Amino acid sequence: MTEPSVSSPSPVQDLIERARGGEARAVARLITLVESGSAALPEIASTLAPSAGAAMVVGLTGSPGVGKSTTTNELVRAFRAAGQRVAVLAVDPSSPYTGGAILGDRVRMQDHATDPGVYIRSMSSRGHLGGLSAATPAAVRVLAGVGFDVVLVETVGVGQAEVEIASLADTTLVLLAPGMGDAIQAVKAGILEIADIFVINKADRDGVEATHRDIQGMIALGGADRGPGDWRPRVVKAVAAKAEGIDGIVAAIEEHRTWLTDTGQLTERRRRRAAAEIEAIALGQLRARFADLPGAGLAALADKVVTGTLDPHTAATQLLDDLV
Amino acid sequence: MTEPSVSSPSPVQDLIERARGGEARAVARLITLVESGSAALPEIASTLAPSAGAAMVVGLTGSPGVGKSTTTNELVRAFRAAGQRVAVLAVDPSSPYTGGAILGDRVRMQDHATDPGVYIRSMSSRGHLGGLSAATPAAVRVLAGVGFDVVLVETVGVGQAEVEIASLADTTLVLLAPGMGDAIQAVKAGILEIADIFVINKADRDGVEATHRDIQGMIALGGADRGPGDWRPRVVKAVAAKAEGIDGIVAAIEEHRTWLTDTGQLTERRRRRAAAEIEAIALGQLRARFADLPGAGLAALADKVVTGTLDPHTAATQLLDDLV
Repeated sequence: MTEPSVSSPSPVQDLIERARGGEARAVARLITLVESGSAALPEIASTLAPSAGAAMVVGLTGSPGVGKSTTTNELVRAFRAAGQRVAVLAVDPSSPYTGGAILGDRVRMQDHATDPGVYIRSMSSRGHLGGLSAATPAAVRVLAGVGFDVVLVETVGVGQAEVEIASLADTTLVLLAPGMGDAIQAVKAGILEIADIFVINKADRDGVEATHRDIQGMIALGGADRGPGDWRPRVVKAVAAKAEGIDGIVAAIEEHRTWLTDTGQLTERRRRRAAAEIEAIALGQLRARFADLPGAGLAALADKVVTGTLDPHTAATQLLDDLV
Repeated sequence: MTEPSVSSPSPVQDLIERARGGEARAVARLITLVESGSAALPEIASTLAPSAGAAMVVGLTGSPGVGKSTTTNELVRAFRAAGQRVAVLAVDPSSPYTGGAILGDRVRMQDHATDPGVYIRSMSSRGHLGGLSAATPAAVRVLAGVGFDVVLVETVGVGQAEVEIASLADTTLVLLAPGMGDAIQAVKAGILEIADIFVINKADRDGVEATHRDIQGMIALGGADRGPGDWRPRVVKAVAAKAEGIDGIVAAIEEHRTWLTDTGQLTERRRRRAAAEIEAIALGQLRARFADLPGAGLAALADKVVTGTLDPHTAATQLLDDLV
């Protein structure tokens, strides 16, 4: 009798092993496979599922010019100093047509290029529906699944992008800088609802106390909706360009993490996140089917709406009738 | 034989007639009915369909503090002076949880409160998917359908909201102000791709020439992708708070309108807009069905993803299997 042959691992298993070992190229390949909806996706997703929730996911957002890249860079340094593997996803929701960051990657990479415990990737959030909501969560799951302890998701923006980052992250940091818009603008931008931690960056500038007061005032005003066990957003000051105040940011992140775990909010947030992700994937698949419909497909219906012979609601009903 | 009785108009027909006559309350009611997915929606949508493409839709976007409300206010004044009925939709994509602008409406309304040729409404773009894309286009169609000649859609933001406004409008204005971020930030924010007209507001401030030069440089760089018949974004200066430069903005809008019509781009843009709108409505209807699924619905699938026993892609497939 012959010994049973030792089966060799599949290409995907091999890729995942190499990614877990810290090979940046293997991580990149996995994310690309997942993003592109490759045939290997089911195997990747199911292999990584048990460990895909293991990372701490930190969102970081703020207006252009507030110092997001510099702050991210310093946070990476701090987490590395604590022995953690760190991945950065720099999501650029701004360039849907041309795709992606302009010089972000190359600038940042330089500081951490030789460190196998750091992985940095830019993603554009192309497209109308499901930009941040489709590719980014999938990439986060890959990064967590291959063993990164911290995943930092950085995105520009007010409004929609911020809301999406909050739905994606365990902990959301909102960066502000003195003199970049008053409290009313901040409230208008809805950041109070999504920020777990406010970072006042460039805190060596004039106006830092006024900004600090404004934010604290906003948080106090929002207090009516907070119960005794609820999280009250922290406000920390930093000068990321001089590496000042980074410890305070990390401490606030850890404090929030403890609160999330102790209150069960971590599981709650992740349930919502998973539901949104499943839904986005399902809707994406349906969208693809719309494009494949024969005959009176979407384009023909759109023509009728433009010429005024059909309204969009009737058109949508016809589209769904064709589909199901 | 008796004369056939003259049938009285339905409540919806009556509402539409009153809205066409300039009654703001009737306009508001129609938009609310459409937004809320009322049972009257099919009748409203089909009655308005023939005239729903008649308005010029102008999008206006820019960072907080750049002077969007003031500029909108002055544009309303200018279009009114030219005898046009003007509607403003102030979309606030920033406040998904609390819903809507904070003091926007009341401040603006004062200038035009007694003018039946002006209608102003704030909308929040609540929710994750299809915020701006679902309610706003429907409101634009109502406003066009009841006879507004110009619909101004104003939204805060960089990124996603800007992209959505560009997909909604015939002509997109991007407001900038001197000293509010350099050219690289502007390129990062993707505005070059969506702006038909750049307005440098607060042009009495220092740095206006540098901003002008930066924008012109960006436009020149983007020229490689432009054919001879393509639109080259215009750059105009204004001081909206002093009502200066408004004529120049209006002239640029009209110039762009002529280009759109002459090149057939107007129909092209509206086809794309209609397709996106139909798709958003259809996806919204499907989303509602997800929530109604019995048994192993979305929540149960999300739980399995959180505990690592299922990946989101397999979960999405199961969700769709249950649906269709």
